Amino acid sequence: MLGLGLIGGSLLRAAVRAGREAWGHNRSAPSVDAARADGFDADTDLVAVLQRASAASALIVIAVPVPAVAATLTAIALYAPNCPITDVVSVKAEVAAAAARQGLADRYVGGHPMAGTSASGWSVGSADLFREAVWVVGTDDGVDPGIWTQVAQLALDCGSVVVPAESAEHDRAVARISHLPHLLAETLAITGARGGPLALGLAAGSFRDGTRVAGSAPGLVRAMCEGNRDALLIALDEALTLLQDARTELAEESSAASLVEDGHGARLTYDNQETWEITGIVPGHDGWIEEMRDAGRRGGRLRRL
Amino acid sequence: MLGLGLIGGSLLRAAVRAGREAWGHNRSAPSVDAARADGFDADTDLVAVLQRASAASALIVIAVPVPAVAATLTAIALYAPNCPITDVVSVKAEVAAAAARQGLADRYVGGHPMAGTSASGWSVGSADLFREAVWVVGTDDGVDPGIWTQVAQLALDCGSVVVPAESAEHDRAVARISHLPHLLAETLAITGARGGPLALGLAAGSFRDGTRVAGSAPGLVRAMCEGNRDALLIALDEALTLLQDARTELAEESSAASLVEDGHGARLTYDNQETWEITGIVPGHDGWIEEMRDAGRRGGRLRRL
Repeated sequence: MLGLGLIGGSLLRAAVRAGREAWGHNRSAPSVDAARADGFDADTDLVAVLQRASAASALIVIAVPVPAVAATLTAIALYAPNCPITDVVSVKAEVAAAAARQGLADRYVGGHPMAGTSASGWSVGSADLFREAVWVVGTDDGVDPGIWTQVAQLALDCGSVVVPAESAEHDRAVARISHLPHLLAETLAITGARGGPLALGLAAGSFRDGTRVAGSAPGLVRAMCEGNRDALLIALDEALTLLQDARTELAEESSAASLVEDGHGARLTYDNQETWEITGIVPGHDGWIEEMRDAGRRGGRLRRL
Repeated sequence: MLGLGLIGGSLLRAAVRAGREAWGHNRSAPSVDAARADGFDADTDLVAVLQRASAASALIVIAVPVPAVAATLTAIALYAPNCPITDVVSVKAEVAAAAARQGLADRYVGGHPMAGTSASGWSVGSADLFREAVWVVGTDDGVDPGIWTQVAQLALDCGSVVVPAESAEHDRAVARISHLPHLLAETLAITGARGGPLALGLAAGSFRDGTRVAGSAPGLVRAMCEGNRDALLIALDEALTLLQDARTELAEESSAASLVEDGHGARLTYDNQETWEITGIVPGHDGWIEEMRDAGRRGGRLRRL
């Protein structure tokens, strides 16, 4: 486990609780000390940790912030180039490209557990963080079925369900449901605050809920949004078109019908969505990648291998 | 109390509990029967209810949906033209203009309790709905200080605090913190649902919170937004400019810094806002209207008269 923050630290706890042998690295000594004090195997020496992984052919999990991913992959290429590799970073195409640049494409299968809170650091982690969470496992062309299975098994061991998705498709999906919500929340917060104490003093549930994630640390929000720039621009342009059209309808016809009716229908679709269990697709069999992707697109989730 | 839905029905309960003599009208017999079964004084005969109000010089509260306001004011002008009048409708300038058209401007002081749920009807009402709520009392030029005091006292009797504000200023404020949030929530719901089952299946807290109010009944949302068209267009244009600028910065500089930093700061302003008690302004004294408005703008709230 490279990185022992909220996600990496929770993952180390969850993996050990599942009966796996697991150890972690963090470059901060206080974090490593805290992990050790809690009874976990952790070290600040990245080279030693990677050499140990190499000797054990261990699955390496990259759980560092986006800006540190490239340097981490360089170290892996130097000290553990034959290990299977995954990550828990919130964007996937950029990490896959960085792995390819290090010649690690055939050892890498991306991952993204949809879990987390606004808190950070080892101390706030929990072995339960991934329970019933959705964990995307990258299903790009040419992915190694053995490594894919290892990554999916780690997710299942942590109590998550697995959604197979191609990196680019994952990024487009999270742009819509995770990154765009942040941009809209920031926008609403600014527009509301411009109304001064009178407006903020009248604010109730709709404003409070609509701006909640604007309370997240700006650095984390920027890293997410900027790391998924191209997909986010697509979602943002769609939102801008919807709002521009609503503006025109409101100004010219004094009506908000189109946006309000469609938005209500979309929220009902979300409330009523059903998921189903993916069964019968065997990693490595002919066409398994396309079948997995198709199942993911249609709302399928893997609950066992 | 003209109208015995969620707000009017709750207000009738709260007024009676506060020891006031109060009676209500609803044009629907089942609603009136339900109110009577709960021990309240209610009738389907609008003329009789208004004639009784006229004889008692009672404060009339308009608690009907926006589209029914004009007809209600016509009936008041016919049968109870000398009664003091207020309302609990979510937009204020339009109701004030409708009152003026009926020659009732000098008897009217607008009100807007910032309370409510997505449910509706007599049965879901509660005498506690207004407890600790913010209740805007219209403070337009030329308002009658005696009627203003009666309306403010009703709000205080129901357990609310009073924020004095001019109708137009109220409407601009709620456009920012109540109507714009609805348009953004609808937009987010549509953009998310376009990602299909994959995107909706990955949606977590930011999408759920950001689209919550898109679950509100479309008719209510449209009535709010369309009834406050001019002020909402101002807020919507500000939001569009912020999002367009963010789009440009993201596309050209791969940065979301401006929107994210400003949005975070605005949310902190909201979280840390402080209110204070308005004291020492006496309705009717020289300059009281301007003083009340100024206090409301600066976050002041009246807790007693």
